[in-house]
Amino acid sequence: MNDPQTSSQAAGQPGGKAHGSTAASSVGLVAPRHFRYDGAFRTSGGRELPGIELVYETYGELNAAKNNAILVCHALSGDHHAAGYHSDSDPKPGWWDEHIGPGKAIDTRHFYVVSVNNLGGCGGSTGPSSINPETGKAWGPDFPSLRVRDWVDSQHILMEHLGVAQWAAVIGGSLGGMQALRWALEYPDLLRHSVVIASALKLTAQNIGFNNTARTAIISDPDFHAGRYQEHGVWPKNGLSIARMIGHITYLSGDLMGQKFGRELQAGSFARGNEEALEFQVESYLRYQGEKFADSFDANTYLLMLRALDYFDLAREYADDAVAAFRHARCKFMIMSFSTDWRFSPARSREIVDALIAAEKPVSYAEVDSSYGHDSFLLPVQRYQKLLGAYMRQVHAECIALGGQS
Amino acid sequence: MNDPQTSSQAAGQPGGKAHGSTAASSVGLVAPRHFRYDGAFRTSGGRELPGIELVYETYGELNAAKNNAILVCHALSGDHHAAGYHSDSDPKPGWWDEHIGPGKAIDTRHFYVVSVNNLGGCGGSTGPSSINPETGKAWGPDFPSLRVRDWVDSQHILMEHLGVAQWAAVIGGSLGGMQALRWALEYPDLLRHSVVIASALKLTAQNIGFNNTARTAIISDPDFHAGRYQEHGVWPKNGLSIARMIGHITYLSGDLMGQKFGRELQAGSFARGNEEALEFQVESYLRYQGEKFADSFDANTYLLMLRALDYFDLAREYADDAVAAFRHARCKFMIMSFSTDWRFSPARSREIVDALIAAEKPVSYAEVDSSYGHDSFLLPVQRYQKLLGAYMRQVHAECIALGGQS
Repeated sequence: MNDPQTSSQAAGQPGGKAHGSTAASSVGLVAPRHFRYDGAFRTSGGRELPGIELVYETYGELNAAKNNAILVCHALSGDHHAAGYHSDSDPKPGWWDEHIGPGKAIDTRHFYVVSVNNLGGCGGSTGPSSINPETGKAWGPDFPSLRVRDWVDSQHILMEHLGVAQWAAVIGGSLGGMQALRWALEYPDLLRHSVVIASALKLTAQNIGFNNTARTAIISDPDFHAGRYQEHGVWPKNGLSIARMIGHITYLSGDLMGQKFGRELQAGSFARGNEEALEFQVESYLRYQGEKFADSFDANTYLLMLRALDYFDLAREYADDAVAAFRHARCKFMIMSFSTDWRFSPARSREIVDALIAAEKPVSYAEVDSSYGHDSFLLPVQRYQKLLGAYMRQVHAECIALGGQS
Repeated sequence: MNDPQTSSQAAGQPGGKAHGSTAASSVGLVAPRHFRYDGAFRTSGGRELPGIELVYETYGELNAAKNNAILVCHALSGDHHAAGYHSDSDPKPGWWDEHIGPGKAIDTRHFYVVSVNNLGGCGGSTGPSSINPETGKAWGPDFPSLRVRDWVDSQHILMEHLGVAQWAAVIGGSLGGMQALRWALEYPDLLRHSVVIASALKLTAQNIGFNNTARTAIISDPDFHAGRYQEHGVWPKNGLSIARMIGHITYLSGDLMGQKFGRELQAGSFARGNEEALEFQVESYLRYQGEKFADSFDANTYLLMLRALDYFDLAREYADDAVAAFRHARCKFMIMSFSTDWRFSPARSREIVDALIAAEKPVSYAEVDSSYGHDSFLLPVQRYQKLLGAYMRQVHAECIALGGQS
């Protein structure tokens, strides 16, 4: 196990051609770390895992006051690799590299950023593709169903291991925002800020419908074998690919797809007689995205993540009263949404804001104009970056006021 | 072959319990008719069908002046059965029964309504599931790819057979609206009104993306066998079911799905420990709709219809200039859209209206508030019915002015 107090950043390569990792605004080369927890992990569904392993990355340094730690929570298909590069030939950086780094909105000169592959994931943390020690075979469909609170609980275990007494902020977009919300209720004293981007108190019926269609595509793939595809030496690639295509279309705005693809054909023309061969660019793009994803992502993990999304309902155990739920929170909130996001629309974020105000909690809210739909939270949308950066400078000023070094 | 001048309405059953077909506003019991055209039918793609058969229904009577005929065009999964019942135990009427009948918006006391199962369909007209006379086997994937203009051409052949010299109106919603638009350009003198509901000049990239995902689900179903499932004695039910689920979610508005299902569970509760067994009502609804559809609809027909939708682009051959395209039209237009329709949004209808105005064509436009999304065009939305009825009364007044009987 690595020393948790040292950043996983490695030194940039001297010489050679300029790689993204050598940019001044990059966290540079990073390496994932593994944390093994040998205690029993009891899930909210009443199951017990005999120990868990979490893979994570950190960027920046924990200060002496240990008050500058930020937890970044990933969404449906994300993982622990949020920023930087794994090697100097790595073609692209982590999924939130636009926002994490020296001088970026989540400034690693000031913050110690922690990013974990969620329990149940397929990025190295214990999940359906891990070996079940009782059987010596992959867990597969026998892996426990998880809820957002289980992720929060496992992140809390990692937090103690890292020696972080309180997060300066827990931050996430989409399903990651649900984790930031749940943290505020489950461990109200262990975070000072909850930053919730393009998220919701719970999914809409339409969202559940899309997830259900994606799920149906996976489980009806003959190669799925009721989740035991690993034992059969196959992979439900078709189903996963279709599931990803559904996600992809719905995470983009209709306007953006129009700008990006219009009705351009991949090759050929509408000259008479060749209709069978025609393919729109948007089709080959979606197929490529679907297949690329299906090559690497574990189907049981995807199903587990979809279910965590579906079942998340912040106020359920508070008699469906979000105001009553938020009364338990002690942190400050920053809520952000994007104008063209139709899967987690601004209206959903306003529900969070309204409930927080009614619960008399400090909350900032920004509705950002962006043409990128739900995917905006991953992208360098200017006003979004500016606002997130400004909010995080406040969070940093608080760290200093509380005795942390600059 | 039936006498085309006689309505396919049959007399209501005397006595017995009151069935929908006995209502004064119903066209009553109806029977499909078959029309066989023995000439060669050349498709726009340059293929030739050695004769075609079209199945159709008619409601109301053709007047002596033969100027009160209305062509109703169906959408993706519709057919010729637009109104009335096929028997007095038929559980539900045709797909547009809300709008066709005595006293309804398309009033069969005044109009002679013709509804055809499109060529390539699976409701009885020649299509992929018909026998290819050259091989003695089902056409399957060898059936020619069709465009909207091919439907218009085949409807024109039926029109001549029926002795209709000019349609009082051609009316359709969605893909049906594309036929009404194409009629106005291909046979400008053969219709007086084009009524285009919840339609578009062409699909958006997002729409093509959804269609592509549906198509991928069908063709990647192992039971699809490259379209030769009939020869294999199987049916690509999973793929069709997923395709239909995608359609279903996207044809409804998000708000309506929320009102209809919310997050209600089918059975059970969120009590700890039973997550695996939980299913939201929206899931079982979608699965039921998908499976019901997949039991009866032909996959090759579905693919053919999706492609006709994708490829439709009214202005393509007019150098992408819709104004130039509409200059060829001679009829009047009524364009209608629905506020919550996000697959064929009001913005798409306004593009039609703007181009018609620029082309100096008479056009009425109504944007109707409705919570039902794209499916609104099938439903008894009050303002929609009122406006369509008012417009059709004008169309009827014209028939009389032109020498038709009331």
